[in-house]
Amino acid sequence: MRDVVVIGAGMTKFGELWGKSIRDIFTEAAQKAIEDAGVDHIDSMYVGAMSPGLFVGQEHLSAVLADYLGVNPIPATHVESACASGGVAFRQAFLEVASGASDIVLAGGVEKMTDGADVTEVLATAADQEYEVYQGITFPGLYAMIAHAHMHQYGTTREQLAAVAVKNHRNGAKNPNAQFRSEVTLEQVINSTMVADPLRLLDCSPVSDGGAAVILASIEVAKKLNKNPIRVIASSQASDTIALHGRSSITTLGSVVTAAEKAYRMADVKPADVDFAEVHDCFTIAEILVSEDLGFFEKGKGGQAAADGLTSLECNLTPINTSGGLKSKGHPVGATGIAQIIELYEQLSGKAGARQVLDAHIGMAQNMGGSGASCVIHILEGK
Amino acid sequence: MRDVVVIGAGMTKFGELWGKSIRDIFTEAAQKAIEDAGVDHIDSMYVGAMSPGLFVGQEHLSAVLADYLGVNPIPATHVESACASGGVAFRQAFLEVASGASDIVLAGGVEKMTDGADVTEVLATAADQEYEVYQGITFPGLYAMIAHAHMHQYGTTREQLAAVAVKNHRNGAKNPNAQFRSEVTLEQVINSTMVADPLRLLDCSPVSDGGAAVILASIEVAKKLNKNPIRVIASSQASDTIALHGRSSITTLGSVVTAAEKAYRMADVKPADVDFAEVHDCFTIAEILVSEDLGFFEKGKGGQAAADGLTSLECNLTPINTSGGLKSKGHPVGATGIAQIIELYEQLSGKAGARQVLDAHIGMAQNMGGSGASCVIHILEGK
Repeated sequence: MRDVVVIGAGMTKFGELWGKSIRDIFTEAAQKAIEDAGVDHIDSMYVGAMSPGLFVGQEHLSAVLADYLGVNPIPATHVESACASGGVAFRQAFLEVASGASDIVLAGGVEKMTDGADVTEVLATAADQEYEVYQGITFPGLYAMIAHAHMHQYGTTREQLAAVAVKNHRNGAKNPNAQFRSEVTLEQVINSTMVADPLRLLDCSPVSDGGAAVILASIEVAKKLNKNPIRVIASSQASDTIALHGRSSITTLGSVVTAAEKAYRMADVKPADVDFAEVHDCFTIAEILVSEDLGFFEKGKGGQAAADGLTSLECNLTPINTSGGLKSKGHPVGATGIAQIIELYEQLSGKAGARQVLDAHIGMAQNMGGSGASCVIHILEGK
Repeated sequence: MRDVVVIGAGMTKFGELWGKSIRDIFTEAAQKAIEDAGVDHIDSMYVGAMSPGLFVGQEHLSAVLADYLGVNPIPATHVESACASGGVAFRQAFLEVASGASDIVLAGGVEKMTDGADVTEVLATAADQEYEVYQGITFPGLYAMIAHAHMHQYGTTREQLAAVAVKNHRNGAKNPNAQFRSEVTLEQVINSTMVADPLRLLDCSPVSDGGAAVILASIEVAKKLNKNPIRVIASSQASDTIALHGRSSITTLGSVVTAAEKAYRMADVKPADVDFAEVHDCFTIAEILVSEDLGFFEKGKGGQAAADGLTSLECNLTPINTSGGLKSKGHPVGATGIAQIIELYEQLSGKAGARQVLDAHIGMAQNMGGSGASCVIHILEGK
């Protein structure tokens, strides 16, 4: 396999983009990425999106987007793995460049969620339709069960969950592309509207529109363009049972554990070598589980670590979700996995401004679908 | 890039499979393919499906299917390019093995179309929602416009269109997995119910449920298993404008022309070297256009060639759609591209029974999405 690097990135602001259609949103992000990379063409493109069919009535999405981006007749492929669609798009682009089939590939992600679809119902199609959703449960309920189990098993507290939201909003307030650039207090999170006990409104990532794109290339291309190459040193993906009831434990995300093991092996690094990470905080409890399952903290200690500030930008031990995460930056599901890579790219290029992690050499992006039935992990290295 | 071979295949019967869910259908096909290949594991899997969200309310499809196939925690990825989803799944599996990232990869396709969704409306999401579908047109109408233009420009006749259906039903009658194992006459096609002038019911591929899967591997794996390797000597993909009105001509499919050029170059073969082909006959006119755009016949002569029997199994010049094609075998959209590969695999292995092409060494599969906004072509070589 050839070495692969990231040489450019671009994204829209995340939020309620009522004046823009899905093709407008994607095109804006993709054009910014192409311009940032300084390339005069791309060989191929991948687009991650969870459900353009249900959200906006448009399938065959990659063909629409290639057309509006003006890059016909290059190959354009839409990939879907629920909320991990963006991460999977990046992985497919990585494999294509690594294989030698292409030298310059765009990996993008997009979702338009605010056009009138019943968002909770559409998102629930990422759970097991036949055994979970038909019984009436949706994702806040599934993650609420995980949260209760984690609290029961490890003594995780309501305040520890809230600490994740407080930190991510503090980071997001520094991110010009974030949907919510406002800080929140522990009290505000704990007293926000109940969604699914114990999860409240400010424990949940929002409904968002948005697009993100990056350009992957071979090292040779990066050298020709005089680019400071940000290397992709690991790409891994794993699956788990679609339904929670199929798992031996619901407080460990098996797909995260497996994908992390593979990624650490491929990159030849340990959890302690990771300088910062973007993880999939669709709900506050998810960030706590993932921070344990990635090996940053012992099982059951993720809540305490968040409350102690060990994952904060200010502490600089292993800052998590410096972008604001899904919670504050927003979560247009197909775009999320690519937006995580963009945060890695900006941090590793020293371009993260007020959010800059000191001595950032190795960054990790962890993106997952549903209640963890799919997980994609990438590790990038700069300088 | 490493050499890649196909070492196993399996599919369900295509048709109205009312007693089986999408996960049953896929699992049946995948298990048959794994058994046929004789492998004890797979490293990764891809699934092509156009719209499980709109057809059966299930996104995150690859996670569901990996779970029910019992292959967790391997990576499982769903790809979509409308009716070319299966071809794209095969291409991604090809790239993954070619890259060296995996040695044994399953490429499958599935669609469950008869569960109650408005099929014509769901399929129309593969056209341009904002500029075509909102005006009231659906695919039979789009292909009818193409047919009228081809008739006007080249003198293609109603009888020539019908000849494609007659041939494909004759082939499909010999295929145990075909949805319609009945021959039809020219008169029956010409007098069947009008759908969109000039296209009648028997010019249109049917609504189908079905699944198909193949196993791709490195040559080393094939050698260890003592498999007669069917090599993938070309994989190409191209895009065109999503809407017909964006094209300089609607009687030439630009994505087919581009993908064919790339495929011939990669395989180092000419159209005359192709012993037989499976092409995307979603409507009879599509097979005529594609047979020209692949270079088998001069532009405008595809209709005459079909009427003259040049594409028939019996003539053995360049037999097209020996499986029965989408028309007679059925068209569960996500499965179609993989079912085409299965026909190539069976023909090149000498296992096609009553449909066997004499001296079949090189076969081509051409799969496309929408009115040709995406096209995937593979060339396989046996013996």
